[in-house]
Amino acid sequence: MANDKKMVEAITSMDVDFAQWYTDVVKKAELIDYSSVKGCMVIKPDGYALWENIQHELDARFKKVGVRNVYMPMFIPESLLQKEKDHVEGFAPEVAWVTHGGLEPLQERLCVRPTSETLFCDFYQRDIQSYRDLPKVYNQWCSVVRWEKTTRPFLRSREFLWQEGHTAHATAEEAEERTEQMLNLYADFCEEVLALPVIRGKKTDKEKFAGAESTYTIEALMHDGKALQSGTSHNFGDGFAKAFGIQYSDKDNQLKYVHQTSWGMSTRLIGAIIMAHGDNDGLVLPPRIAPVQVIIIPIQQRKEGVLEKAWELRDRLSGFKVKVDDTDKSPGWKFSECEMRGIPLRVEIGPKDIAADQAVLVRRDTHEKVTVALSDLETKVGEMLDAIQKDMFERAKKHRDSHTYTALTLDELKDIADNKPGFIKAMWCGCQECEDRLKEEAGVTSRCMPFAQEKLSDTCVCCGKPATKMVYWGKAY
Amino acid sequence: MANDKKMVEAITSMDVDFAQWYTDVVKKAELIDYSSVKGCMVIKPDGYALWENIQHELDARFKKVGVRNVYMPMFIPESLLQKEKDHVEGFAPEVAWVTHGGLEPLQERLCVRPTSETLFCDFYQRDIQSYRDLPKVYNQWCSVVRWEKTTRPFLRSREFLWQEGHTAHATAEEAEERTEQMLNLYADFCEEVLALPVIRGKKTDKEKFAGAESTYTIEALMHDGKALQSGTSHNFGDGFAKAFGIQYSDKDNQLKYVHQTSWGMSTRLIGAIIMAHGDNDGLVLPPRIAPVQVIIIPIQQRKEGVLEKAWELRDRLSGFKVKVDDTDKSPGWKFSECEMRGIPLRVEIGPKDIAADQAVLVRRDTHEKVTVALSDLETKVGEMLDAIQKDMFERAKKHRDSHTYTALTLDELKDIADNKPGFIKAMWCGCQECEDRLKEEAGVTSRCMPFAQEKLSDTCVCCGKPATKMVYWGKAY
Repeated sequence: MANDKKMVEAITSMDVDFAQWYTDVVKKAELIDYSSVKGCMVIKPDGYALWENIQHELDARFKKVGVRNVYMPMFIPESLLQKEKDHVEGFAPEVAWVTHGGLEPLQERLCVRPTSETLFCDFYQRDIQSYRDLPKVYNQWCSVVRWEKTTRPFLRSREFLWQEGHTAHATAEEAEERTEQMLNLYADFCEEVLALPVIRGKKTDKEKFAGAESTYTIEALMHDGKALQSGTSHNFGDGFAKAFGIQYSDKDNQLKYVHQTSWGMSTRLIGAIIMAHGDNDGLVLPPRIAPVQVIIIPIQQRKEGVLEKAWELRDRLSGFKVKVDDTDKSPGWKFSECEMRGIPLRVEIGPKDIAADQAVLVRRDTHEKVTVALSDLETKVGEMLDAIQKDMFERAKKHRDSHTYTALTLDELKDIADNKPGFIKAMWCGCQECEDRLKEEAGVTSRCMPFAQEKLSDTCVCCGKPATKMVYWGKAY
Repeated sequence: MANDKKMVEAITSMDVDFAQWYTDVVKKAELIDYSSVKGCMVIKPDGYALWENIQHELDARFKKVGVRNVYMPMFIPESLLQKEKDHVEGFAPEVAWVTHGGLEPLQERLCVRPTSETLFCDFYQRDIQSYRDLPKVYNQWCSVVRWEKTTRPFLRSREFLWQEGHTAHATAEEAEERTEQMLNLYADFCEEVLALPVIRGKKTDKEKFAGAESTYTIEALMHDGKALQSGTSHNFGDGFAKAFGIQYSDKDNQLKYVHQTSWGMSTRLIGAIIMAHGDNDGLVLPPRIAPVQVIIIPIQQRKEGVLEKAWELRDRLSGFKVKVDDTDKSPGWKFSECEMRGIPLRVEIGPKDIAADQAVLVRRDTHEKVTVALSDLETKVGEMLDAIQKDMFERAKKHRDSHTYTALTLDELKDIADNKPGFIKAMWCGCQECEDRLKEEAGVTSRCMPFAQEKLSDTCVCCGKPATKMVYWGKAY
């Protein structure tokens, strides 16, 4: 039983070493494996199933708001990457360069896409002629490469999977509307499906995307009090359109530049699920994203009728994602294993339960056990999965709210930053000098200027000049 | 109406120039656009929707036979690629090399995966210890890169999308079984979903995959009489396992090498759909793969009640993939446009039809028109889509069968190769010299040794020595 042993060996406690706990969970829950390619990971079946579910849910939401999928080349010629000045400055230092094709050196080197704004612009420049061609609301699911120095599974790897939407519009208003629409779609997805409460807001100029006029973000709080940027949506205005010459002839026969947006979410979300919901027994998956929602574990399975009953219950629960663990491992191993994997609900069924026409249901999130009559099984399982989904969101929200602090002075802010992991709400004058100083002196960065603004005081927490915005500050992944 | 014009401009007739016809169709049906990256294409929404449908159908069939999806890194370190001698010889001349990460040169260069046998082996070597870990039946959906000199959309491009399955088994028998199972799955998919009849068979040693013990293939015949290899499945035996040291301890406590397979299908299938079914009006899509199965075109749509009726019919046909073309283009334009796009069935509805409680249904494949009572609409549409799917397969099969010839002598074979595009069945002794000579003198390659063998004569068509196999020969894409 070498394999079982490995699975249930104790993992590092998150209170002792959160980073090690995270590493233990991604490995022991068999989400990833390291690879021979430095900084790149192998996403194993249980990890990839999470990504498939994310894709499936997000893609359906995209299609409802008119998004169409396409596929662009993975390579960007160096000259194309260089067309938009801010963009190339942001990305050139961290791209992988292809210099040879087969045995021949290339005439122009190509980078492996770190993001595809330049490719979409190059395409739109040819594809858009008239106002009739607008809007373009395209997306692609693909992998991108950023040559990071320090990497961590899902959170920061040299290659990661994502979707990137790229749109072109006739007017600035429409582009702004789309930018916000997609951010809200992301936020709703995180809250409704991943049980992940997020702060919706705008990035400061310092933190916005290379080449963007404005960047919107959703920020989630992890269990250790660090923030995770979980999705971003950018409004480019007509900056890229001017750099790439993307013009359309309008109804008035005038040539005009398009207005563009882009927005993306990635396998990072899997890191967010782990760090927002996990506990010292391993992964805890929200039912709406779990590849397996219900696991049935037969007790004393060699006794007559037990396995048959387990299979019967599986068939009755076919409206859920259900599995029977009928391997020859002991029930104890199976319990630990399905806890490590984060399966939301466990159904235990043994000879005594069968005799009493009942089963034991155990919630992964609270470890709460209830005995239910078999006649109520489908109803109870449905109710409990709904309750788990709802409670996980509420618990994460409560954790976030109780780890969100207010600072009115720089000393207060530094004290919180040093001693209380979490979000810090504080007023800001709007200048980058104060942002830089808070980074340097308190180790925090501006996470966002939330849409839901509050007036905590009249003055900047840093310089004391009149404040223009309330900002969420924090340490971030 | 510049856009409409573009759509319905005549395309090159396939009888005049098949290659140009193909290029015209992929562009005018808006499946692809060329990109600034030589040899790479942009897959536009209508092209990508075909790929999504292929993915969806194939992936469901994979999951039914126990396949699990994973994701491997896109880069392969040079030393890893070199571990299996035949494999590296086959692929090294056509890979793209990454030599720099950011501003630094890499210590070891990485190739962008042309296929991922080496990565899966590297992973399996770590992941497999015991017989309990077997079989591994993994697959990934990704893009791969092969630095081809001459490229054509979908058929041969430097980057293409595909799936690659990679399995590891305890026994040679199980590996062989999986190799054949997946080939048959591919063949059934092509025939049932793409209406594409295929020959199932084994590749000769000369044509097999780099590093494989045996390669199975499905070969389809295109409208111009050229063959298209549409999917392959490889049995590696324990060759890769020995090169990579992939061993497991069996029930008898002995260390044994695993036996491996791999199998893949790609966006090439879209080329097959175009060239097997298309005609001089454009694309013809089999209903089971068409992103839009039924298009409703209102006639005199400004007359009261016409658009409303069209929308009502759309709602009634919601069991199919249905769209209304309610743009302000003329019906004539709309007809040409939906023919170019290959939409299987067109429903025309105008004031006279409404008065008579009927609609006109037009098949894309035969242009046949039938008038149906509106009360029968759902039933008739369903029946006609089924008939189109079935007839398209039969038509393609008839075309293939009537373009399959038998050659008993080398002169006969050369004459057929020169004058009658299609498959040539001929006996073969089994030696590569004859294969090389047929390539040189007749310009044909061995497509496969079909599972369904026939004995056409006792002697090799080329050298006259005793024949061992009946082979399909042909010119191929």
